[in-house]
Amino acid sequence: MTVETKYISIQTNGNGDILDITSEVQSRISDCSLGNGIVTIFTPSATSGLTTLEFEPGCVEDLNRLFNDILPPDRDYAHNQRWGDGNGHSHARAALLKPSLTVPFVEKELTLGTWQQIVLVDFDTRHRQRKLVVQILGE
Amino acid sequence: MTVETKYISIQTNGNGDILDITSEVQSRISDCSLGNGIVTIFTPSATSGLTTLEFEPGCVEDLNRLFNDILPPDRDYAHNQRWGDGNGHSHARAALLKPSLTVPFVEKELTLGTWQQIVLVDFDTRHRQRKLVVQILGE
Amino acid sequence: MTVETKYISIQTNGNGDILDITSEVQSRISDCSLGNGIVTIFTPSATSGLTTLEFEPGCVEDLNRLFNDILPPDRDYAHNQRWGDGNGHSHARAALLKPSLTVPFVEKELTLGTWQQIVLVDFDTRHRQRKLVVQILGE
Repeated sequence: MTVETKYISIQTNGNGDILDITSEVQSRISDCSLGNGIVTIFTPSATSGLTTLEFEPGCVEDLNRLFNDILPPDRDYAHNQRWGDGNGHSHARAALLKPSLTVPFVEKELTLGTWQQIVLVDFDTRHRQRKLVVQILGE
Repeated sequence: MTVETKYISIQTNGNGDILDITSEVQSRISDCSLGNGIVTIFTPSATSGLTTLEFEPGCVEDLNRLFNDILPPDRDYAHNQRWGDGNGHSHARAALLKPSLTVPFVEKELTLGTWQQIVLVDFDTRHRQRKLVVQILGE
Repeated sequence: MTVETKYISIQTNGNGDILDITSEVQSRISDCSLGNGIVTIFTPSATSGLTTLEFEPGCVEDLNRLFNDILPPDRDYAHNQRWGDGNGHSHARAALLKPSLTVPFVEKELTLGTWQQIVLVDFDTRHRQRKLVVQILGE
């Protein structure tokens, strides 16, 4: 059993930008020395999160609509009032979606479904450069 | 440290069907060669998710009501408009709940609370045959 | 590769109490024999959950407001009707937020962002004594 730490650097547009990082994660698995195990992708951030999604424009729009419905940007947030900030909704959205995703891999392949991609959702209100941690455990 | 890959095959009714898979997961732990570690259960699907719940009819109904409130099936979804599909709400619900759950086990027992069961929630709009990945890491 | 099991005991006020457990988790990493890996924090409970948050009073208030909006305590819940209980909302909230969080660590340090803390959210309707499982895997 070994641990291998890799990273994914990615530029986002913020504002609910949803990015397909599946091929980046798969390439980290392909390049590591492990055949079977789990990969934990982690965003070291309080305003972005990770999940899986059928990555097509309709699902992307629908997921953003959900977050706009339950946490609209143009409402009062206590975070904004305290810090003169404008990303209170980004923080609550990220806490709900959570910053990590763990996916098994078998014989060096992620066990994703056919229509299932790994996505980073950046809820912040501006462009961000993100550096995700890709922690691979296995044998 | 070892990795053992197992599977759970399960028939669902879709439409928010919530299934208690705790004994299936525990039996995979009991049958493996590891004593302590973590198990990651993963649904290779974009329309189902995993969490824990007190598995009794009241909690099952309340959780479904939440998803009906925030992502009602009978609304327009961009996914449906693009693909002539009817499961746009299923995709957004699954992305929110996420496809994996990681639970520690100690001395071959899942560390669940007394009233806490592991559940698969199938949001798709029809019966589905699901094959979950059960990736066990430990020693 | 090794597995080390540790625990965090913590008193909560319930009712959406959000507690920063980052230093507790980091101290378990510091005290273990592993340098690199992942830590899974798990709450063996059906009425609490784990995530990350910028732990400041504004974000804490905003996250609680979200849960009050989508799962208000003063509504009918099927769980309450069946069991004469008053924590139906707590169960649905906990199922949505989920009971585990996995965070990578590198050279004995959690890979958290600068403004990102690990938090336990206790949704139950009363004071609770919680004992979290901290399962550390790595080498």
